[in-house]
Amino acid sequence: MAEIWKGAPVAKAINERTEQVVKSLVEQGIQPCLAIVRVGERPDDIAYERSSVKALDRLGMQARLLAFPETISQAEMEDAITALNDDEAVNGILLLRPLPRTLDQNALLNMINPVKDVDGVTPISFATVYAGYGEGFAPCDAEAAIKMLTGNGVNLKGKDIVVVGHSLVAGRAIAALALLQDATPTICHINSVDVAAHTRTAEIVVLATGNTEGFGAEFFSPEQMVIDVGIGVSKKTGLLAGDADFETVEPLVAAITPVPGGIGPLTVSVLMAHVAQAACRQAGISC
Amino acid sequence: MAEIWKGAPVAKAINERTEQVVKSLVEQGIQPCLAIVRVGERPDDIAYERSSVKALDRLGMQARLLAFPETISQAEMEDAITALNDDEAVNGILLLRPLPRTLDQNALLNMINPVKDVDGVTPISFATVYAGYGEGFAPCDAEAAIKMLTGNGVNLKGKDIVVVGHSLVAGRAIAALALLQDATPTICHINSVDVAAHTRTAEIVVLATGNTEGFGAEFFSPEQMVIDVGIGVSKKTGLLAGDADFETVEPLVAAITPVPGGIGPLTVSVLMAHVAQAACRQAGISC
Repeated sequence: MAEIWKGAPVAKAINERTEQVVKSLVEQGIQPCLAIVRVGERPDDIAYERSSVKALDRLGMQARLLAFPETISQAEMEDAITALNDDEAVNGILLLRPLPRTLDQNALLNMINPVKDVDGVTPISFATVYAGYGEGFAPCDAEAAIKMLTGNGVNLKGKDIVVVGHSLVAGRAIAALALLQDATPTICHINSVDVAAHTRTAEIVVLATGNTEGFGAEFFSPEQMVIDVGIGVSKKTGLLAGDADFETVEPLVAAITPVPGGIGPLTVSVLMAHVAQAACRQAGISC
Repeated sequence: MAEIWKGAPVAKAINERTEQVVKSLVEQGIQPCLAIVRVGERPDDIAYERSSVKALDRLGMQARLLAFPETISQAEMEDAITALNDDEAVNGILLLRPLPRTLDQNALLNMINPVKDVDGVTPISFATVYAGYGEGFAPCDAEAAIKMLTGNGVNLKGKDIVVVGHSLVAGRAIAALALLQDATPTICHINSVDVAAHTRTAEIVVLATGNTEGFGAEFFSPEQMVIDVGIGVSKKTGLLAGDADFETVEPLVAAITPVPGGIGPLTVSVLMAHVAQAACRQAGISC
């Protein structure tokens, strides 16, 4: 039986710190504000928007919601981002993705002022995650995966960590952040020949593929820690589930994060911390 | 007995292409120019400067040499880089490193105009290597390691590649570039617990540690390709040598790059290609 690593306890510690930072900012007349930009009505965008607004509110920060129809043009989106970049009351910008294919998503992400890029989507943020120095933020999902480990007392130094999935928002960033903490990272993906051979020998396995319940017992071995960043709908139960086939994997490994209730809540709390930090930096206050 | 992969044949193919690009630029009145900035008199800086100048000359490009004493101040260095950034006749800037400790090396590297950053040292270049899109160049050493493989007919897709060393100029960049070609990369380094366990099971091993002759037979297995990016002085012979203990490793593996004569000449030809490409981009010419 594995230890079940829920997100809530680690999120709580992060939120307590954020609350203090916000309190001190408010005392100085600054209320941190996150702008959330949504195009269309995708249910998971709406769910993430909702939990972010709730968290902002709870921590004493402001939300600015922009919701556009899927028919919005590239030029109109560019104008919206420029306006948010220029708005001194906005400290962070979160552009919910994927955008409709009619829009050039990378061009829009690249436009975000790096100091307001609280979800790590601009080149300056990529460079910070990759190089380990600079003013950028890590993608919230990726930082949440690392915080789940460190928050549960894991010292990454020298640990063999295999990340499955090589997206910029998750897998690639998780491997880069793990390396910054002196882990030995491997990145597997759709073109890897024998993923199970890699995952079975790792001390830490991070799943970030979106292949819901696609990873069964054959990918794991005892003593492992499994961080499940995936979230999708189970074909078996119709409920939310992660990349791991939880029922068969959980009895086998040492620790595993559940879906939902694992990385999800932590991601929101990392986003909140970034908004508060961005507000500090923009005000020239150390926090 | 391994195949010995020398740098010269792959460099020749790259240089032929660069020569064509330069010819077409010169016909349009543009002679590409690389500025090489050296501080102090380190013998390996001088050697790299010399081979770069020779290569520039052979390919019809210009060199601009700046050599400063070790006593140069940060402000003077900043002025020098600003002048090169502003000089339209200069297409590429190569700042030889490491700089003396009296200087803030990262601050100076970050100052280089990204479009002139032909050795991949600025955040924009980091982001390009990491994310796979953008206008930056890869570090020449790292790109040379990948070109050595592809130039010898290796398709990286799905290949297990273990890189030993996690520097930004070599190991980390090589792993990132390999991932962009759909390899499965692992990065080992000074804090990795069992490097040999990783390297022995890889299909490709890249050594980029500077631990001269530090990798003997116990790190390798048959059928492997070994790319040796290290260069130092052998304690046994007093001659230049790589990270691999060539004598014991060469009989064991399928292919290996020698030191000297392996990655070295390729690095210079990649630098030359970058200078020509930078000149094209700055002139708005596709090449």
